[in-house]
Amino acid sequence: MAYIDLPEELPGILGPMTFRPETAKHLNALAETLLRGPSTLTSGERELIAAYVSHQNNCLFCHSSHGAAAAHHYGRNYELVDQVKNNYQSAPISDKLKALLGVAGKVQKGGRHVTPEDIEAARAKGATDLEIHDTVLIAAAFCMFNRYVDGLNTWAPAETLAYDDMGKRLAEVGYNSF
Amino acid sequence: MAYIDLPEELPGILGPMTFRPETAKHLNALAETLLRGPSTLTSGERELIAAYVSHQNNCLFCHSSHGAAAAHHYGRNYELVDQVKNNYQSAPISDKLKALLGVAGKVQKGGRHVTPEDIEAARAKGATDLEIHDTVLIAAAFCMFNRYVDGLNTWAPAETLAYDDMGKRLAEVGYNSF
Repeated sequence: MAYIDLPEELPGILGPMTFRPETAKHLNALAETLLRGPSTLTSGERELIAAYVSHQNNCLFCHSSHGAAAAHHYGRNYELVDQVKNNYQSAPISDKLKALLGVAGKVQKGGRHVTPEDIEAARAKGATDLEIHDTVLIAAAFCMFNRYVDGLNTWAPAETLAYDDMGKRLAEVGYNSF
Repeated sequence: MAYIDLPEELPGILGPMTFRPETAKHLNALAETLLRGPSTLTSGERELIAAYVSHQNNCLFCHSSHGAAAAHHYGRNYELVDQVKNNYQSAPISDKLKALLGVAGKVQKGGRHVTPEDIEAARAKGATDLEIHDTVLIAAAFCMFNRYVDGLNTWAPAETLAYDDMGKRLAEVGYNSF
């Protein structure tokens, strides 16, 4: 049960967002811009980064919902999402995305964990300044979203497919619809 | 030197925010609402939570700038800010704020570190649902801001007083002025 009085029917971040719409609107606008705004990274790549960081943070609601969004960006490919979460080096994704996931994994541990070598590895695979920036901010933002969701002890469905409709909506309509 | 090409004269988060105004506007709007919007926690209390979490994350720019903002909310009291950063239990602040700093410190480690006992301790000192919510989200948001600033390896002045003008502006004018 959540630590504060939230609408019981709403899982994960949806409860606190309903409780505090003043902050929710900025959180949704940030997610929309970061994950679906103009970028040379596809929304699928950005949702994979979000799902990966959330999985590293052990945030069930966030890694399941953004995993489902990522799956829908790749033709409902949940197998790809599981591969990225569990061992991205062997996943069928670009070398650039693998290097960016390396940067994201360091950001998840803490900003000072990112090394010049991590950045160089991403550049060597073609990552631009904007792509490095967005990767760092997506990883940092999910360290916020994950803590928000779990720090208030919200509930989350255990089954991956319980997130399928939500993932489809996130992939096709986006974050401003919440 | 920052990992991406940022305006050299701007310290900390100001460089990446100038580089990527599309995300900066939502980050500033979130900070303005969280730290200066309507709440039963004062802006001084909220800036102390922000400075404390940033200090725990070892983010020099964030703990110095939000420490300076907090100092200005308390009549330019830098001693109070240092006490909160280094040993808040002995600082001259309310028992409620001490308990909320306890919650914030757990969120800094990870959302799942927050226990029912942490929340009960805050309630016993009079904290409301809204105050617990805002404390969790402020702590979570600074886990984002801190990672954004340090994950891109931005530079920051070492001297506390280098942040005095910025802190005054944050306390008196706010975040939408950036």
